[in-house]
Formats: sequence, structure tokens, C-alpha cells
Amino acid sequence: QWLSADGPAMGAEFQSCQTVLITGASRGLGLQMVKQLVTGNHRPLKIIATAREPAAAKELKELSEKYKGLHVVPLDVVSQGSIEKALQEVGSLVGDEGLNCLINNAGIMISGDIETVTAEGMMKNFETNTVSPLMITKAFLPLLRKAAAKSTGMGIHRAAIINISSMLGSIELNCQPVTGLKCCPYRTSKAALNMVTRCLAVDLEADGILCTAIHPGWVRTDMGGAEAPLSKEDSISSVLKVIASLSEKENGGFLSYDGKPLP
Amino acid sequence: QWLSADGPAMGAEFQSCQTVLITGASRGLGLQMVKQLVTGNHRPLKIIATAREPAAAKELKELSEKYKGLHVVPLDVVSQGSIEKALQEVGSLVGDEGLNCLINNAGIMISGDIETVTAEGMMKNFETNTVSPLMITKAFLPLLRKAAAKSTGMGIHRAAIINISSMLGSIELNCQPVTGLKCCPYRTSKAALNMVTRCLAVDLEADGILCTAIHPGWVRTDMGGAEAPLSKEDSISSVLKVIASLSEKENGGFLSYDGKPLP
Repeated sequence: QWLSADGPAMGAEFQSCQTVLITGASRGLGLQMVKQLVTGNHRPLKIIATAREPAAAKELKELSEKYKGLHVVPLDVVSQGSIEKALQEVGSLVGDEGLNCLINNAGIMISGDIETVTAEGMMKNFETNTVSPLMITKAFLPLLRKAAAKSTGMGIHRAAIINISSMLGSIELNCQPVTGLKCCPYRTSKAALNMVTRCLAVDLEADGILCTAIHPGWVRTDMGGAEAPLSKEDSISSVLKVIASLSEKENGGFLSYDGKPLP
Repeated sequence: QWLSADGPAMGAEFQSCQTVLITGASRGLGLQMVKQLVTGNHRPLKIIATAREPAAAKELKELSEKYKGLHVVPLDVVSQGSIEKALQEVGSLVGDEGLNCLINNAGIMISGDIETVTAEGMMKNFETNTVSPLMITKAFLPLLRKAAAKSTGMGIHRAAIINISSMLGSIELNCQPVTGLKCCPYRTSKAALNMVTRCLAVDLEADGILCTAIHPGWVRTDMGGAEAPLSKEDSISSVLKVIASLSEKENGGFLSYDGKPLP
């Protein structure tokens, strides 16, 4: 019933979150998150959307011209230099508020079964989907800690890291492939991301910073393909509701877009 | 009761396995596997032990001079050139028999929590512990298929891939850290290896090739440290029994050294 409740334009639940950053926001699910957040009635004060090449991100640029609270920051997630530059810019934007919510959404999908998989494909998918969220989190930790120090409890009203993962990253579910896709590098990188999420949750619990992995469903994007059952609008409407409702119970967890825990 | 049943010198259950290859056999658990296999009463016809620098692997060299069926082959698991050279050599050694059992044991441990972790550490641990077993399996597949074609059922009597993983790679268990170690790169690489194991099991089931991940316990080795509860002898005695008893039920699974399934 999450999906049928109300339309895509919500974001109301994000009212307690002052500042949010979304990586990989030039298209797909990242862009959809930005769209729904800026058009929500109770949107965060500052929405920071990152893209590798902001100049080429036409839709994002148009949105940022229309909505004052939306800021576009260049970020190549696999470049440490780019991460540090983005940190400076975001630090100035959020100031003493710090950062309430970091959404590590940027990701790539490399396919391959035992016949076609390459070491390069495995390493590249792991670098982008697993290592980058960790290094971005590490870099932005001072801003998350600043926000965490201002509040109590756990959730996006305080400080939270959301890693956009995939059901394909569930090791237990892999014996029942729903898609028939044999994308070993992608699956492996997402299983690894789930472990990174768990490690971060353990390491950052004392700081009051929540860390959760969320699977957005199989969605009709460039990555998901045309035959996926879920629209971007419905997926992200649900994902944002789940993010807004997170508390200490979900710390270190792996949730589906409908809020159900995944193995 | 696995542990108390009989001493380290066993290997009897490996009688149905004609040819076995163990990577990273110059020391630690790999060397211990070789020792127990060569001294077993019903040892495999051919035991192939690989090491990055065979010249420096003194104990392994001594064993190979004493036991005729033991062959030492140079293999740097992160080098595609080295993998291909080893494949040629192993192909000549096993001939028409093919390879019944490939044990991907070589691995490294890089520690690091959120404060100390680096992208390089994550990538290096992933390359050695996750990508290498996959690329070695891919390269040796023709030899495994040759062995698989000679038999029926599933297990080391036919063709099997064993990935030596770690309980630290279990995402579900990470919330109860037993060691206090915060080794994010290592944990992540082993979680990823468990996914690779599952992907391989799905891809190779039609060939009758089994693929299982085994956690050897926390063992007193250079990697495990002096305070670990388990001796190399006891761990490997159990691990070899578990490997010898594997059947289609355990395909794609993740087992502890005592044969119990891990989450």
C-alpha cells in the first residue's frame, strides 16, 4: 500500500532533515529523488545533488534554476581529489548545520557470467559501487558528525548514511534469480556494499550516525531496462518514505523499497 | 566431535579425489592442508600446491622431495600471466584426468576501520581475496570440466571448487563481532567472495561442478594471531573432512569448519 497511498510529489517526511546530499543525481533514480524532494511540500532546507559532469546534466540544471534550495556540485565518485573538492563546497553550503543525510546513490552495472567476466570488470564495479560510497562517507564524516552533535536519537533528523544497494546483492536470494541476468561483478559489488554498510553502522553507532542499505526495486531506468516492473516515480516515492522513517532499529540493515528487511 | 575423533593425519576421505590443487600453500592453512593430504592413508593421486615464490617456500619444497605425488607450481594469484602459465603446467600434470578439486585458499588480510581505511586497501584486498579466486576458477574451468565429464553426482569425486572464506565475511554475523577487529577491507572482500561462490554455483551447476565457501575457524596462523582458539591441525583436519563430504546439498553454500551452515 506504500505505492498507492499518494503520488510522487511528497517529500513531506523529510521536513526534519535540514540538509541532504545525493550522489549520481544527473539521471535515473538519483535525479528522481531530487525531483521528488524539491517538489515536496516540506522539503529539506538544502538539497545538494552531485553529478560527474554538471554541465551535461540538463534536467538537473533546469531544476536548480527553478528551486532555490537545490545546489548542484561536481563529484566524480572514484576520484579522491574530486571528493575533497566537493567536501569543501558542501562544507560552505551547509555551514554549521552539517549534513543530515548522505545518500550514496551513484553506481554502475557491469554484467558477466563465468565465461565473460573479467578482472577489470570486477575491479571497476567494486571501485564505483563499494569503495566510493565508503570513501565519500569517510570524507563527509566531519559534516555528518556536526549534524549528529545537534540532536539525539537516530534517523535523518540527526545524521544518516543511505547506501542504495540492490536485491541482486543479497547472497541468500541469489539462488532464486528473478531476472535471469547473470551479472556477477554487479552482484558482488552490491553484496560488498551491504557489508560496508554493516561495518559503517558498527563504527559510527557511537556518533549517533545511522547507516542503512536500501534496495530500490527493479526499476525502469537505463540500468534496469524497459521490462522492469516498477516506475522511477513509484520506486523513489517509496524509498524516500522508508528513508524518512528510519530509526535505530534499522541501523546496519538492508531494506527493500517497501520497507521490508531483506536477507 | 569432529575435532577429537582422530588426529591430523587423515585425508582418507579424499580417496575418491584423484587430483587436487591448493593455492597459497607456502604457509599457514594452505601448507597445513598439503601436509595432512600427503600424510593421509588414502591420499589423492596428485596434489598440486601453488606458491607465489616456490623457491622461498622451504617446508613445501621439503615435502615435495619426500612425497612423489606432490607437485609445487608457481602461481601469483593476482597476475593473469602467472595464472595462464600455471594452467599450462597443471594441465600437463593432470592430463586426461582433469582436476577434481580446486581449493582457492590464497588470501591476505588488510585491516581498517572508518578512520584508517583507504581505497587502495579496499581494492587490494578485493583483488586478492575475491577477484583472484574467480579468475583462477575461470582459467582452470577446462580442467574441472574434463574431470566432471568422467563422473556423476556432485562432490570432490567429480569436480569441486572450494573457496576458503571467513566467518568475518558473514554480513549477518557482523553485528556480533567476536574478535573486536575492525577489518573492513578484509570482511568486505570475504562477503564478496561468498557472493562469487554463489554466482559460480549457479553458473556451473549444469556442468556438475560444485562450488562451496568454507570458513576455517579462527586459527593460530600469522594471519589469525596467537590468541586464536583453534590450531592449524584441528582446523584443517575438520575442513578436509567437510570438503570430502560435500554433495549437491551444499552447492553454493557457506559452511563452517565443523560442517555447520553459516548465514
